[in-house]
Amino acid sequence: MKIRKTLRNVTPYIAGKTKPGAIKLSSNENPLGPSPKALNAIQQELNHLNRYPDGRSGTLISALADHYKLAPECFIVGNGSDEIFALIAGTFLEEGQEVITADSTFSEYNFSGLLFGGHVIKIALRDGFFDTEAMLAAITDETCLVFIANPNNPTGTFLKQNEIRSFLKRLPNHVILVLDEAYAEFATHEDFGSGCDLVMDFPNLIVTRTFSKIYGLAGLRIGYAMAYPSLTQEIFRAKQAFNVNLLAQCAAAEALNDHDFIQKTLNLCSEGKKYLYEALDRDNYFYYPSEANFICIRIGKDSKEVFDDFLDQGMAIRPLASFGMEDWIRYTIGTQEQNEEFIRLLKSLRE
Amino acid sequence: MKIRKTLRNVTPYIAGKTKPGAIKLSSNENPLGPSPKALNAIQQELNHLNRYPDGRSGTLISALADHYKLAPECFIVGNGSDEIFALIAGTFLEEGQEVITADSTFSEYNFSGLLFGGHVIKIALRDGFFDTEAMLAAITDETCLVFIANPNNPTGTFLKQNEIRSFLKRLPNHVILVLDEAYAEFATHEDFGSGCDLVMDFPNLIVTRTFSKIYGLAGLRIGYAMAYPSLTQEIFRAKQAFNVNLLAQCAAAEALNDHDFIQKTLNLCSEGKKYLYEALDRDNYFYYPSEANFICIRIGKDSKEVFDDFLDQGMAIRPLASFGMEDWIRYTIGTQEQNEEFIRLLKSLRE
Repeated sequence: MKIRKTLRNVTPYIAGKTKPGAIKLSSNENPLGPSPKALNAIQQELNHLNRYPDGRSGTLISALADHYKLAPECFIVGNGSDEIFALIAGTFLEEGQEVITADSTFSEYNFSGLLFGGHVIKIALRDGFFDTEAMLAAITDETCLVFIANPNNPTGTFLKQNEIRSFLKRLPNHVILVLDEAYAEFATHEDFGSGCDLVMDFPNLIVTRTFSKIYGLAGLRIGYAMAYPSLTQEIFRAKQAFNVNLLAQCAAAEALNDHDFIQKTLNLCSEGKKYLYEALDRDNYFYYPSEANFICIRIGKDSKEVFDDFLDQGMAIRPLASFGMEDWIRYTIGTQEQNEEFIRLLKSLRE
Repeated sequence: MKIRKTLRNVTPYIAGKTKPGAIKLSSNENPLGPSPKALNAIQQELNHLNRYPDGRSGTLISALADHYKLAPECFIVGNGSDEIFALIAGTFLEEGQEVITADSTFSEYNFSGLLFGGHVIKIALRDGFFDTEAMLAAITDETCLVFIANPNNPTGTFLKQNEIRSFLKRLPNHVILVLDEAYAEFATHEDFGSGCDLVMDFPNLIVTRTFSKIYGLAGLRIGYAMAYPSLTQEIFRAKQAFNVNLLAQCAAAEALNDHDFIQKTLNLCSEGKKYLYEALDRDNYFYYPSEANFICIRIGKDSKEVFDDFLDQGMAIRPLASFGMEDWIRYTIGTQEQNEEFIRLLKSLRE
């Protein structure tokens, strides 16, 4: 046997190295745990685990349709957003076509492109932001997909809604923009606007979201996409019959309306940012103001060494060397106690 | 945008149509529910659902390695066996290469082949059995994968271990045999032998199994494959970073050793078969003696009409028209009460 030509460079980045007992603030998980409403829903379904899940995720899609005031046909649910990215590539990308994204962004865009034989073009961020002009300039007749994270992971920076709209207006019809809004629920800046509002205006826009972050359900694997039905129904054809597990479906439908938990999470995040910004400013660390639940900090030292050092002291953070940012780290905003410990560790770096 | 050329024929078969309150004996689920040990394991992990799962499924793979006395490197775990089939195609199949399977067998083999641009060749079953001679005769230099289900779904028939071994000895080195043993735990025939015993003898054999059937965990989505590490480690490269949810991993590791539940399930299945065979013989129905947890019965009428009729009366069975067996149905062996109801419904067909 031989390995597929197009697969040669594909290796998933298995993130989240930690050690037993360490505080894990490396994967942008919710420090408050999973949504309590989701856990209640799971309890109701445990005795039905011998049954296959709904292959169409019908109940969850109804809840999403209500939430966003869009038709159910506009949605598709996946085994995490990761699966959605792969399904999009599997549906639209022909071998040899181009995928455009950034150099310092979520790794699964690159993975999905390579998996289906795409040629992935990584445009450098400009001062930490997606460089939409350079991305538009890179588009050719062979471009199939553009991936933008908004807010971006790992920088936490964002594109304004009018920038997204303007980008879409200038995007040729044969190119699909995948706008990954995994962290959009955390964005509070007045100029941030979700792509969800643009879905019905642009038939070549796909917006993705996840239950892994604000809803605290990373362990269940569940994400979703919104787009014109002409896109979602084609993507549906590329998915396996039972791609989303039963507990993820019922938990997500409840988590979507767990307003108390969502508010608590947002409060923790904004209080944490306030504390961290002040502490980082005091110590003259450069960081990007973040619209997400993490902060991207220029540490001025080899990020992998800092990772090892912090882990030895009981905290896992994310070194950004694999994102091409050798002396940067990404810190998930934790509880006040965890944030204080992080600042203590940062200070110890300079002692 | 345009749809990928190779995707044009790909549509997942979303099986398992039923209605609220109906007895569902259409998807070969475990009528006793999920493994109790698995449910206990799930309870311990619910508060950790905000955490990403182990991308390598390490604990489960250790349990599998112990169970099968094989090295951990021989295993890969997937979001159901369905994902494993797609990962295999994604790893080894080049666009235009051939995939060989049977006409009346599990639909996901065909789906996986088409998803990655394969040319799927379906060899007719011979008297309900995989026709290994005809399959070998169909192999060319362009053949990449052969899929065989043992026992077969939907017929419940099986190939003897010496037939599998002989097939593998005659299989050219450039072709991989995927031997799907989703139902192997139910096989009791003295000539049945698992491909698991052959994995280290044939570096072009991949054996797949699932937790959806005897362990009662279809809702969690978890399956696995065993093969030479040279195969599994290549397949690993095609998977998404966090493909298997956290609850599935911990539940499966416990279910594997839930011997009481496994024995109860096997007893129910063998007692059910004894009752059903006698009843079917009495009424002169032709069926295949089954090594699985279902029976494939020639009903002599349009199977879709029989499906609708039975569903109206409160029971979902599987019509086999989509398997090319127009006047056959597949019945999942249920509890004694359910089996008696099924026989009553069968009798009513002839009244």
